[in-house]
Amino acid sequence: MLFSSELKQASQPIIEAIYKDPFIQGMLKGNLPKDVIKYYLRADASYLKEFANIYALLIPKMQELEDVQFLVEQIQFIVDGEVEAHEILADFVNEPYNEIVKEKVWPPSGDHYIKHMYFNAYAKENAAYTIAAMAPCPYVYQVIAKQALQDELLNNDALLKEWFVFYSTEMDELVHVFDNLMDKLTQNCTNQEKHAIKDCFLQSTVHERNFFNMSVTEEVWSYGGDNNE
Amino acid sequence: MLFSSELKQASQPIIEAIYKDPFIQGMLKGNLPKDVIKYYLRADASYLKEFANIYALLIPKMQELEDVQFLVEQIQFIVDGEVEAHEILADFVNEPYNEIVKEKVWPPSGDHYIKHMYFNAYAKENAAYTIAAMAPCPYVYQVIAKQALQDELLNNDALLKEWFVFYSTEMDELVHVFDNLMDKLTQNCTNQEKHAIKDCFLQSTVHERNFFNMSVTEEVWSYGGDNNE
Amino acid sequence: MLFSSELKQASQPIIEAIYKDPFIQGMLKGNLPKDVIKYYLRADASYLKEFANIYALLIPKMQELEDVQFLVEQIQFIVDGEVEAHEILADFVNEPYNEIVKEKVWPPSGDHYIKHMYFNAYAKENAAYTIAAMAPCPYVYQVIAKQALQDELLNNDALLKEWFVFYSTEMDELVHVFDNLMDKLTQNCTNQEKHAIKDCFLQSTVHERNFFNMSVTEEVWSYGGDNNE
Amino acid sequence: MLFSSELKQASQPIIEAIYKDPFIQGMLKGNLPKDVIKYYLRADASYLKEFANIYALLIPKMQELEDVQFLVEQIQFIVDGEVEAHEILADFVNEPYNEIVKEKVWPPSGDHYIKHMYFNAYAKENAAYTIAAMAPCPYVYQVIAKQALQDELLNNDALLKEWFVFYSTEMDELVHVFDNLMDKLTQNCTNQEKHAIKDCFLQSTVHERNFFNMSVTEEVWSYGGDNNE
Repeated sequence: MLFSSELKQASQPIIEAIYKDPFIQGMLKGNLPKDVIKYYLRADASYLKEFANIYALLIPKMQELEDVQFLVEQIQFIVDGEVEAHEILADFVNEPYNEIVKEKVWPPSGDHYIKHMYFNAYAKENAAYTIAAMAPCPYVYQVIAKQALQDELLNNDALLKEWFVFYSTEMDELVHVFDNLMDKLTQNCTNQEKHAIKDCFLQSTVHERNFFNMSVTEEVWSYGGDNNE
Repeated sequence: MLFSSELKQASQPIIEAIYKDPFIQGMLKGNLPKDVIKYYLRADASYLKEFANIYALLIPKMQELEDVQFLVEQIQFIVDGEVEAHEILADFVNEPYNEIVKEKVWPPSGDHYIKHMYFNAYAKENAAYTIAAMAPCPYVYQVIAKQALQDELLNNDALLKEWFVFYSTEMDELVHVFDNLMDKLTQNCTNQEKHAIKDCFLQSTVHERNFFNMSVTEEVWSYGGDNNE
Repeated sequence: MLFSSELKQASQPIIEAIYKDPFIQGMLKGNLPKDVIKYYLRADASYLKEFANIYALLIPKMQELEDVQFLVEQIQFIVDGEVEAHEILADFVNEPYNEIVKEKVWPPSGDHYIKHMYFNAYAKENAAYTIAAMAPCPYVYQVIAKQALQDELLNNDALLKEWFVFYSTEMDELVHVFDNLMDKLTQNCTNQEKHAIKDCFLQSTVHERNFFNMSVTEEVWSYGGDNNE
Repeated sequence: MLFSSELKQASQPIIEAIYKDPFIQGMLKGNLPKDVIKYYLRADASYLKEFANIYALLIPKMQELEDVQFLVEQIQFIVDGEVEAHEILADFVNEPYNEIVKEKVWPPSGDHYIKHMYFNAYAKENAAYTIAAMAPCPYVYQVIAKQALQDELLNNDALLKEWFVFYSTEMDELVHVFDNLMDKLTQNCTNQEKHAIKDCFLQSTVHERNFFNMSVTEEVWSYGGDNNE
């Protein structure tokens, strides 16, 4: 089995749990509270800005021109900021996306996820560690969206269905590129290194779960102060 | 008010919460389960190894010889590994410290704390950010230990009382040095930078709370796999 | 005077020396040896690959979206690799550019220049230091090209004249953006920091001079071994 | 042959050249100008401060406690600053060492050497690269000092003879530790990685040569400005 397949397979129990958690169930039934969606969009905006930085930190680790080109395109994509999935959620909330994300949030679970990615980008020369920290993001969305579209509980009348439609195909290429990079970059890795990279991947899958859950609970730092920025 | 005093004052609500949480209350009454203490010692051993690395990463950020000397002494202290407080807990558990920590743990809350410190050491040139991430550790122990020794609920017959006795005085110098460094390194900081540094300090105080709590719940990663190393 | 103007003014004596050195004089008279040009193109290809990496390392240091967009465009430009100036030189040599740069060189003076840029990107949080290390590259080419076009010694019949024509206008925008970034990023710097940033700029101007000179002497590492890669 | 032996053997031609260069020949005959020695001591003081920082950056790369302890001892040694070899040179110059090094120098060749070490410490996860950048320092001094003591041209009456006596034995342990680290850390390296590490070692040997030569010429940056700090 390819190492990328092994990673994805090992993450199935976590993805199943994400699917059953309130966020995705609310999306499925079309009744996720609007405040939860606004919180999610705000946290996601903070996260995406850092995700672009992480892509940038990977550029000097790449030997091949086409891998640098891929990274540059991904940064460009985030910087351009035209993500259809965001617009679907903003439409549901019935407020302009740019208005929603003017309010910034930086919750503990998002902080953990982001610092997990930075740690691997800074401390690990082999980009495979950082790819492992990033790859669960598109993969989890892809798997959940495809499953949702097959789910008889899906509310076909709800606007939110389009969110699943979007992610059911739009992540395919990115998942494919991440898989190939993972397999290429771990070719000469020892079993010990692969074990560490697998942990890195599974931890980010758990972070994905925490990210959805923190949106439902509208998580804040318990020192009672204002948010991070 | 000195900036270091402002930080310490702002952290009081979190420290009060730590004091009331099960870990410190169990220490106070002398009835903390031995498994909890073993888990705590294992997590702390992982944490200390990284704490030494963080001290090392600060060395190139320092301009003055005496600050480098302080950092080298702190690393030396951790590397030598003769921490009386550990021996007190190992005696209570009635197993040799080195045997207890042979089993490694790397729980989510500890991971977050450690990656918070690394992020600041890697991304922030001014050492004040990293000092802010480190300083709550000795400070929380100092405040709690002093308070416990005044607490009429303290079980004076319990071996664990010695743990409080140790921390009630042994952190004084380190807290003092961290305070001075904090005040010196933030002299030319803007209010925005100071706000970020304060968040950094308060987040680590929350991480201290999570660290004790994760020991009580014997927290593990929810992907069901083995631990991180 | 703007800080960016102060830097550029301080570099004039070095730029005058570059103009009088054999490389530019050979370009001017249209009689620079073809081996020198091939060596220069090879060294420049190694340099540009690292220059793209340095741009990438600056992305996480930027607060504003438009600055990230500028950096992404610059990386894209280098990665696309269609530099007219290279084609002019390759035409003069009468060999395809891609054939010429298949042979790699990594000479000592180029190594120093590149490690100067990396040091500032890694060690300095404020991007102004790295911008100072990068900015002399387009600026030196711009000044020299404009001066050459006014120089009565310019060989108007030589193909190499086009190299000056290209750089006399094509660097204008990049120099302008670097100037603005420099002035913006140093607004809150102390005089001591500005002094260090100025050294950083002047050192890179000296590295530009060494870069041309190493091409004329076809510099190699004196341990007699093969080149660096 | 051990990889560490291969590196040392490959550096012999450079070390022979260093021996014949004016600095060592002046030391040997006891007639090196005092200004040259003062310049060397000043440049060496700048270099040693950074060398301590490089040791610190290696600490997080180490897996084994004894390697961390070695690094801490080396930093401690530099920070304590009692280097007998410096005192011998200061005695020859007949000025107190601390007075001599109050004037700072930061010449181009020293800058290149130091940024070579930082680059490897920052960009390379495997400490072998940085060890390769550091190891020529003690090794070159050891080889040259042993050779000088056998050389019939050595001025036995000169105070400077003691400098060779010091380095003929005092580097033995450090060379030994570096050799062992190099062999241990490159055990799983590919041939391509070993080739890069070898280049790293040979480049630093060339930097050692440049360091002595820059002292003889009292090298300065050609922008005519003041020194770097």
